[in-house]
Amino acid sequence: MASIGIGVIGAGVMGAEHARILATEVSGGHLVAVADADLPRAQAAANGAKAMTNAEGLIADPAVEAVLVASPDSTHHRLVLAAIAAGKPVLCEKPLATSSAECMEIVQAEIRSGRQLVQTGFMRRFDPAYREMKAVIEGKALGGVHILHCQHRNAAAPPWFTGAMAVTNSLVHELDISRWLLSTEYTAVTAFPYPSEEGKTADPALFVLETKAGTLVSVEIFMNAAYGYHVQAEAVCAKGTIGLAHPALTRIRHQRAECGSFPSNWIPRFLDAYRIQNQAWIDGIHSGTPPVEGATAWDGLVATCLADQIVEALTGRQRVEFKLPPKPLPSEAV
Amino acid sequence: MASIGIGVIGAGVMGAEHARILATEVSGGHLVAVADADLPRAQAAANGAKAMTNAEGLIADPAVEAVLVASPDSTHHRLVLAAIAAGKPVLCEKPLATSSAECMEIVQAEIRSGRQLVQTGFMRRFDPAYREMKAVIEGKALGGVHILHCQHRNAAAPPWFTGAMAVTNSLVHELDISRWLLSTEYTAVTAFPYPSEEGKTADPALFVLETKAGTLVSVEIFMNAAYGYHVQAEAVCAKGTIGLAHPALTRIRHQRAECGSFPSNWIPRFLDAYRIQNQAWIDGIHSGTPPVEGATAWDGLVATCLADQIVEALTGRQRVEFKLPPKPLPSEAV
Amino acid sequence: MASIGIGVIGAGVMGAEHARILATEVSGGHLVAVADADLPRAQAAANGAKAMTNAEGLIADPAVEAVLVASPDSTHHRLVLAAIAAGKPVLCEKPLATSSAECMEIVQAEIRSGRQLVQTGFMRRFDPAYREMKAVIEGKALGGVHILHCQHRNAAAPPWFTGAMAVTNSLVHELDISRWLLSTEYTAVTAFPYPSEEGKTADPALFVLETKAGTLVSVEIFMNAAYGYHVQAEAVCAKGTIGLAHPALTRIRHQRAECGSFPSNWIPRFLDAYRIQNQAWIDGIHSGTPPVEGATAWDGLVATCLADQIVEALTGRQRVEFKLPPKPLPSEAV
Amino acid sequence: MASIGIGVIGAGVMGAEHARILATEVSGGHLVAVADADLPRAQAAANGAKAMTNAEGLIADPAVEAVLVASPDSTHHRLVLAAIAAGKPVLCEKPLATSSAECMEIVQAEIRSGRQLVQTGFMRRFDPAYREMKAVIEGKALGGVHILHCQHRNAAAPPWFTGAMAVTNSLVHELDISRWLLSTEYTAVTAFPYPSEEGKTADPALFVLETKAGTLVSVEIFMNAAYGYHVQAEAVCAKGTIGLAHPALTRIRHQRAECGSFPSNWIPRFLDAYRIQNQAWIDGIHSGTPPVEGATAWDGLVATCLADQIVEALTGRQRVEFKLPPKPLPSEAV
Repeated sequence: MASIGIGVIGAGVMGAEHARILATEVSGGHLVAVADADLPRAQAAANGAKAMTNAEGLIADPAVEAVLVASPDSTHHRLVLAAIAAGKPVLCEKPLATSSAECMEIVQAEIRSGRQLVQTGFMRRFDPAYREMKAVIEGKALGGVHILHCQHRNAAAPPWFTGAMAVTNSLVHELDISRWLLSTEYTAVTAFPYPSEEGKTADPALFVLETKAGTLVSVEIFMNAAYGYHVQAEAVCAKGTIGLAHPALTRIRHQRAECGSFPSNWIPRFLDAYRIQNQAWIDGIHSGTPPVEGATAWDGLVATCLADQIVEALTGRQRVEFKLPPKPLPSEAV
Repeated sequence: MASIGIGVIGAGVMGAEHARILATEVSGGHLVAVADADLPRAQAAANGAKAMTNAEGLIADPAVEAVLVASPDSTHHRLVLAAIAAGKPVLCEKPLATSSAECMEIVQAEIRSGRQLVQTGFMRRFDPAYREMKAVIEGKALGGVHILHCQHRNAAAPPWFTGAMAVTNSLVHELDISRWLLSTEYTAVTAFPYPSEEGKTADPALFVLETKAGTLVSVEIFMNAAYGYHVQAEAVCAKGTIGLAHPALTRIRHQRAECGSFPSNWIPRFLDAYRIQNQAWIDGIHSGTPPVEGATAWDGLVATCLADQIVEALTGRQRVEFKLPPKPLPSEAV
Repeated sequence: MASIGIGVIGAGVMGAEHARILATEVSGGHLVAVADADLPRAQAAANGAKAMTNAEGLIADPAVEAVLVASPDSTHHRLVLAAIAAGKPVLCEKPLATSSAECMEIVQAEIRSGRQLVQTGFMRRFDPAYREMKAVIEGKALGGVHILHCQHRNAAAPPWFTGAMAVTNSLVHELDISRWLLSTEYTAVTAFPYPSEEGKTADPALFVLETKAGTLVSVEIFMNAAYGYHVQAEAVCAKGTIGLAHPALTRIRHQRAECGSFPSNWIPRFLDAYRIQNQAWIDGIHSGTPPVEGATAWDGLVATCLADQIVEALTGRQRVEFKLPPKPLPSEAV
Repeated sequence: MASIGIGVIGAGVMGAEHARILATEVSGGHLVAVADADLPRAQAAANGAKAMTNAEGLIADPAVEAVLVASPDSTHHRLVLAAIAAGKPVLCEKPLATSSAECMEIVQAEIRSGRQLVQTGFMRRFDPAYREMKAVIEGKALGGVHILHCQHRNAAAPPWFTGAMAVTNSLVHELDISRWLLSTEYTAVTAFPYPSEEGKTADPALFVLETKAGTLVSVEIFMNAAYGYHVQAEAVCAKGTIGLAHPALTRIRHQRAECGSFPSNWIPRFLDAYRIQNQAWIDGIHSGTPPVEGATAWDGLVATCLADQIVEALTGRQRVEFKLPPKPLPSEAV
C-alpha cells in the first residue's frame, strides 16, 4: 500500500510538531507540504518537503492526499470545508470551528460528501493512560462511575487569556475526554470562578457538569497554576476509583525531597497521544474506516456548542441547562 | 504536677478507644471512670477503673477532674452543660450538640462560667499530616489558596445513613478542618447529589463552598466508597499545591500490582490524631491554656449550624447563603 | 498502679529527646532526674525535674526506679552494670557496650541478677512501618524472604566518621532490624566499599550478609548521602515484595515537580518509634514482662560482636564467616 | 528518500513483534519479508508481506535492504555474518552470538567490510526512562554515581531456565544498560546465589560488580518473582539519587488498596523502547550514521564475554576479575 502524502496547514508550535511527527514517526504516510502565511516558518517546519503560503493551494496540490489543519482557530471552518470539497480526509486541531453554526456547516458538508472525511484533533482519546482508564471503566469491574474529578493546570497563560478563553481552549479538552470516557452526554453546568483580583481575570474556576447517566463531572481549570502542566482525572466508581498516574519517568531524590517532574507545557505530556492519533488517522485512511476513538465532526460541534454555553454560565453565575441542535442523520443533510 | 483523673462517658467504639488512650498512652492524665448505660460495656472499657451507668454521677465524682463525652449525639448538650456546671473541663466528641440553639446554650454557659472549659473533638486538627499542610499554607511559600479539594470516603454505611446524616456526621469534619486550614469563614454552598436509585439514598454528593477569603472548597462525601476509608485534601495555591500523602506505611508488590493499603474505618487513620488531641487537652488543663489548635464551643456551633443549612441546600437543590448567629462576646453572655 | 520514676543519663541530642518523651508523652512513667557532666545541659533537659552531674548518684537515687542510658558509648558498660547492681530496669541506647567482652559481662550480670533488667535501645523494632513489614513477612502470604535490601542514608557525617564508625554506629541498626525482621542469624559478610578519594574515607559501602535461613541481606550504608536522612528496606519474597513506604505526610507540587520530603536526621523519622519503645519499656516494668519486641542484652551483644567482625571484613576486603560466643543459659552465668 | 525494505528473521514472540512494529509504526522503512522455519508462523507475522523458510534466501532477496535477526540465539552468529557479507545493515536481537569467539568473528568481519553494519538489540538504551536517567547522570547536577542498584524480575521462568541462563538472558541486559548509563567498564564481579532447594535452581541471585570508575553496581536477578515483570534502577550519586519511576499509567483503588500495575512480561514495559530503537536504526541507515545510543558489535561482544565469566563466578562462588580481549582497531582486522 502506497504511503499517503500529507499536507500540514499552519507552522506554529502545533503545526510544526505535527509536521515533525508526520515526517519522522508514522508508518504509511509522510509529509509532503507545509503551508503558513510566514514562508520561512513553513520552510523550517517542512524540513525539505514543499513549503508554501497558500493554504488553499496546499489543499489543491495533487501530491497532498490528506490535510492536517493546525492554523489559527478562525481559519478552521474555511479550510475544513475546502478539504471536504476536495474530497480529502482532514484532521483538524480543536476547535473544529469557533461557533456552533460553523461546526454545523461542516457536519452537513461532510454528510453531503457521502464519506467520513473529518477528524477533530482531540488527541487525548489516543493517550495510553486515558485509554487504560476507559478500558477499566468499560470493563465494569469497578461498577458505574458516580463522579469524575478532572483538573487541568497550565503553568502560565498570557493576561489576555480570559475566562472565556480558558473555557474554549482548555475546558473544551476536558469536555471531550470526559464525554468520551463516560459515553454519556452533559445536561447542565454550574460554574464557580475564583474571585478575580483588581485588573485580573478570575482563574482558577470550578465547573460541575451533570450528565444523562447521572455521573457528576467536576472540573478545575487553572491557567496559571505555576508549578507546571498537569492534567488529572479520577473516576469514582461504585466499587473503587481509577485515575491517571503521575506521568514522570524517573524519581529524583535531592535537597530533602523525592520528586517526580512535570513538563512546562502540554507537548511532552501528550507526545505519544499526538503520534498515535496521527498514526490511527493514517491507518483509517488506508483501511477506509476512520478510527473509532477519533472525534468526529459532530464531536467537534458538541465541544464548541457546549463551551459557548459554559462561557455564559461562567459570566451569569447560574446553572445552565445545555441545549444542542439535533444531530443530523445522513439523510437529513441540507 | 499531679496526674489528672479523667472520666469517659460512653463506651461504644469511640468511647472505648478514648478510654484506652487515656489509660495507656497519655502523660499527665489517667482514666478513672467510664460511664455507659450498658454496665458490662462500661466495665470492659474501664479495664480496672471505675465503671458506672450514671453519666451525671461520673461528672459529679470527685475523682473525675475532667470529662470526655463520647455518648450518643443527643446526650452531648445535656452532659456538656453538666460538666460546665460542675466547673470541669470537657472534651466532647463532635457534634457539640444536634442543633444550633443547643450549641448556643453551651457557648453562653461557658462564657458565664468565666473559663474556657469546652473543647469540641474535631481531632483532625491534631493529625500530623493536616498540621503539616496548615504550616505550609501559613508559611506562604506557595501563595494564597485558591481552591481546596476534599474527599471523604467511608467504605460502607448502613442504608439508614441518609444524605442528611452524611452531612451531619461526615461532611461536618470537612467543614471544620477546611475552615481551620484556611482560617476563613464560609459564605455559601451549592450541593450536587449523585442521583439516587430506587429506594436508595443519593450517595456520593459534591458540595462547593464559597468563603470570605475567596477560596473555593470542593467536597466529595461518599459513604459507600467500598474500597476503604480514605480522606484526601489538596490545597491549590497560587504557586503550587499541597495535599495529604497516601498514609500507607508499607508498599506490597504482588499479583501484578504495587499496592499501599487503606484502613476499613477512620480509627487506624486517625489513631495519632486522637492521642495527640487528648494529650494536648490534658496539657492545656495543666497549663491553664487550652490548645490553640483545639476546636472551641463556638467552632462546634459553627459546624452544627452550617451542617443544618447544607442539609437544606442538598434537599432544595439550590445555592444557600449561610447565616450564622452573632458570636457572643464574653460581656454578652445571657 | 503508681507512675514509675525514671532517670535519664546523658543530656545530648538523644538524652534530651528521651527526657522530653518521658516527661510529656508516656503513660505510667515520668521523668524524675537527668544526669549529665554538663549541669546546665542536664537542667535544660530536666525541665523542672532533678538535674545532676553524677550518673551513679542518679542510679542510686531512691526516686529513680528505672534508668535510661543515653550517655557516650564508652560509658554504657559501666552504667548498665551499675543499674543491674542496683536492681533497676535499664533501657540503654545502642551500642550496649563497645566490645563483645563488655557486652558479655552485662549478659552474665543480668543472668546472675535473676531478672531481665536490660533492654537495648534498638528502637526501629517499635517503628510502625517495620512492624507492619514483620507482620506481613510472618503472615507468610508472600512466602519466604529470599533477599532483604536495606539502605541507610544520612545526610552528612563529620570527616572523622570513618568506615569503622559507619559500621558500629549505622550498620549496627540494619544488623539488628534485619535479624529481627527475618528471625534468623547471620553466617557471613562480604564488604564492598566505594573507593575512597585522596584524604577521604570510603563512603558509601555495600555489604552482603548471608544467613542461616538462606536469605541474603544486602545493605548500603551512605553517611554523606546529602539529600536527607532516608532508611529503606524491601523484602523480596517468593510471591511478592514488601517494603517501607516513603514516610512523607504531604505531597507538594511546585517548581515543575511533585515532591515528598525527607528529614535531615533520624529523629523525625523515628519519633514514634522512640515514644512507642519507651512506652513499651514502661509497660513491661509494670507488668513484669519486658516487651517481646525489645532487644535484649544478648541482642546488644550480637550487634556489637558482628559489627566488629564486619569492620575487619571492610578493611581486609574478604568474606568473613561470623563467630559468636555461645549464648549463656541462665544456669551458666559465671 | 525512499522507504527501506526490511526483512525479519524469526517469527517467534520477538520476531513477530518486530515485524508488527516495522509494518505499522515506523517511518522511512517497511516490512518486506519474514523468514521462519515454521512457514505458517512466518506468514502470520508477515501479514501480507513475503513469508519464507530460508533465512539466507531472505538476506539475499533484493527487496530486503536491511535485516532484523530475531531467530534462536544459536543462529545469530551465522546470520549476522551473512548480512555483513551481503553488505546489508543488520539489527540483531541479543545476544550477538553465544560465545566471545563468535562475537569477535562478527566484530572482525564488520571491520573488514569497512562499514558499521551491525547493531545489537539492547533496546533498553532507547527506553525514555533510562534515557532520562542517563541525561540526569551526565548533567552532573547530582554528582558522580557511587552505587547503581538494579533489580531485574521476571514473573516466572521454566524450570530449565538455570542460573547460567538467567545470566546470559537476563543479567546481560543489566550488564549492558548499566555500562551504558555509567560510561565505564566492569573490572570484577562477586556472585551471591540464593541457596537452591532440592531439585531447584538457585534463584534469585545477587551480583556486585566493580567498575573502572569506582561505581559499584548491585544487581538482583529473580526469574520467578511471581508478582510481575519489573525492572528497577537507582543511581546513588554524591548529591542525590535518580531512579526509574513505577511505569504504571493509572492508579486503581479497590479492595482496601491503591495499586499501580505491572505487566506479566517485558513486552508491554519496553514497547516504546523497541519502536524507538527500530526507528533510530532505520534513521541511521538513511543518514549513514548509526544511532550513537545503539549497541555496537563490540558492545555485543562485551556482554557475551562478561556473562560467560559471571557464570563462572556464580558456579565457583568466588570474586572474578574480568578479562576482555583487546578491542580491535579498524586497521587490525584479521
